[in-house]
Amino acid sequence: MVDPLVMQGRLDRLWTSLEDESLDAVLFVDPANIRYLSGFSGSESLMLVEEGRRTLLVDGRYKEQALREAQNADVIEYGDKVEGIIEILKQKGMGRIGFESPSMTYAQYMKIRKGLPQELEMVPLERSLLFLRARKDKGEVAFLRRAAAIAALALQKTLAAFKSGMTEREAARLLDWNMIQEGGERPAFDTIIASGPNGALPHARPGSKSLAEGELIVIDYGVLLEGYNSDESVTVALGPPSVEARHVYEIVLEAHDRAIEVIRPGVLCRDVDATARGIIEKAGYGSNFVHGTGHGLGMQVHEAPSVSRKSEDRLEEGMVITVEPGIYLPGRFGVRIEDSVLVTADGHEIISCTSKHMMTL
Amino acid sequence: MVDPLVMQGRLDRLWTSLEDESLDAVLFVDPANIRYLSGFSGSESLMLVEEGRRTLLVDGRYKEQALREAQNADVIEYGDKVEGIIEILKQKGMGRIGFESPSMTYAQYMKIRKGLPQELEMVPLERSLLFLRARKDKGEVAFLRRAAAIAALALQKTLAAFKSGMTEREAARLLDWNMIQEGGERPAFDTIIASGPNGALPHARPGSKSLAEGELIVIDYGVLLEGYNSDESVTVALGPPSVEARHVYEIVLEAHDRAIEVIRPGVLCRDVDATARGIIEKAGYGSNFVHGTGHGLGMQVHEAPSVSRKSEDRLEEGMVITVEPGIYLPGRFGVRIEDSVLVTADGHEIISCTSKHMMTL
Repeated sequence: MVDPLVMQGRLDRLWTSLEDESLDAVLFVDPANIRYLSGFSGSESLMLVEEGRRTLLVDGRYKEQALREAQNADVIEYGDKVEGIIEILKQKGMGRIGFESPSMTYAQYMKIRKGLPQELEMVPLERSLLFLRARKDKGEVAFLRRAAAIAALALQKTLAAFKSGMTEREAARLLDWNMIQEGGERPAFDTIIASGPNGALPHARPGSKSLAEGELIVIDYGVLLEGYNSDESVTVALGPPSVEARHVYEIVLEAHDRAIEVIRPGVLCRDVDATARGIIEKAGYGSNFVHGTGHGLGMQVHEAPSVSRKSEDRLEEGMVITVEPGIYLPGRFGVRIEDSVLVTADGHEIISCTSKHMMTL
Repeated sequence: MVDPLVMQGRLDRLWTSLEDESLDAVLFVDPANIRYLSGFSGSESLMLVEEGRRTLLVDGRYKEQALREAQNADVIEYGDKVEGIIEILKQKGMGRIGFESPSMTYAQYMKIRKGLPQELEMVPLERSLLFLRARKDKGEVAFLRRAAAIAALALQKTLAAFKSGMTEREAARLLDWNMIQEGGERPAFDTIIASGPNGALPHARPGSKSLAEGELIVIDYGVLLEGYNSDESVTVALGPPSVEARHVYEIVLEAHDRAIEVIRPGVLCRDVDATARGIIEKAGYGSNFVHGTGHGLGMQVHEAPSVSRKSEDRLEEGMVITVEPGIYLPGRFGVRIEDSVLVTADGHEIISCTSKHMMTL
């Protein structure tokens, strides 16, 4: 259970961020935000947040769980979700409510809109909610650290079992199993194990290709624990890699290390990206770094802030971001090196636990 | 790879279902629909479908994969997703396009809308796309059967290892691991193992409670394979159950069996629900059956048709639905029994592989 004072702090911050909107309430549909603001961990519900009051709407499948988990919220069972929320909004006689426009679907919006009196205003909220969960409190950081530690233990065990001839899929299964064995709830996302030329696909799915001597293997994986995700990537060599592979690895590692060095409160996220990208560009591989340098990490694997070329986000104490530069050489190989990093009062702390020096198995 | 004729059939059915809408194109955002209509299995993309032409928009992370997987589609890399699609829609000079209103978020819609010339109409599509994937072709049924068989093998192995004192979480981990070991890609959804009083929570999360002698254990689990999901629930007893537990089990089994018996093309889904519900109500447990009887199953764990009290959907050959009545007695125990069932030309075939007679471990 989240400390009641911490929970109250989250609600207070919500209302502070919405001060200018003069809202009577906010309607939440995103399960991560609902969990963050109530403790309820079910995957389907609606929550109406007024100042000083939260109303959680669930269907029969989740009622027991909601009564058990939701901290200080009224739990109401609905038959039909949209009808349920319309009825409550009418009963409460509200004038102006906000909603999560990046989570509510167009169809949900239209159904709710049609059921409400015209004078009730529905205000789309995007930017003002984007950073709701961005600054992690101590309890959250503890979960993120523990998830990262479990992940690293699982990786160690898995790497020890890697051998030439094992398929990527077998290797990914083993890593998934070890994450669960070490205490994770489940993998945070579809584990990537991409060897040789497959490493040039940033989001490759592990397949029937076998791990082969002399190839690089990109591993991107994470653990889910109590609603929080870890996210880390390593690139390892199965037997001595080529001179070129070593060279590319060192460039990516340099980009990764230098980008992490600049992390502290007040820094623009795009400057973190520019640091990593500058090193890769200078080495002549700019067009082979085909994604942003990183992203916020927490209850969702990708959340605010964005650590990309055009990001206008600024780092604040308590944010947790990934730093994951990569170089992808289509048809040949790829390298990605990723750590999750906590922004501290005066700098940063890496919370991933695996050394990023080149590892040859 | 999907047979090109089958793929063409899917596209033809799409256009037939949209005949009345006079659309120039349909914009897809749902990864399941995009995979169904192109073969591309990445989790983030946009696809514009015109008659005779598909354009798949991906970011740098997915370009290689899209080029490899997408059958007969133009692959375009975008920097910003919304800007990318706006540019293409303008270039093509379209007048009227449809979009998936239950998948597109309100924020996405507004951004695209604002970027387009006013005269370009955007038509929300819900009902007309709901059944796009509902009737499974032979290849799909083969994947669904294989996923179900893998799941059953994993369940057998797992049940053999159940013992008093093992926690629900350990049991769920073991089942997850066995699903992967037997050839599944990953669990289709968060595995439910709920023992004793936890069984009264239809969507319980496996926790630190130990399995105990004499209690019922509800297990709801599935395997993901090549994009297709299995879904099955069993309720087993660890040691001889109480007379009441046996009695409740037999009622749910009767509801399950009779509901399956009525499945054939032309039957209303709500009549399948009514059959199961009628038996449970007659036995005096009507208020303890707190969810619908089932749902369609395929690339998503829950898809059309809906098998619930108010459903107006009608069964057609090739649909695959779950039948999963349950009785939940808060604070005491629960029973749910679920099979996945294929609607055949003249009746049905159960594709789940585990016998539903009461099992005492």
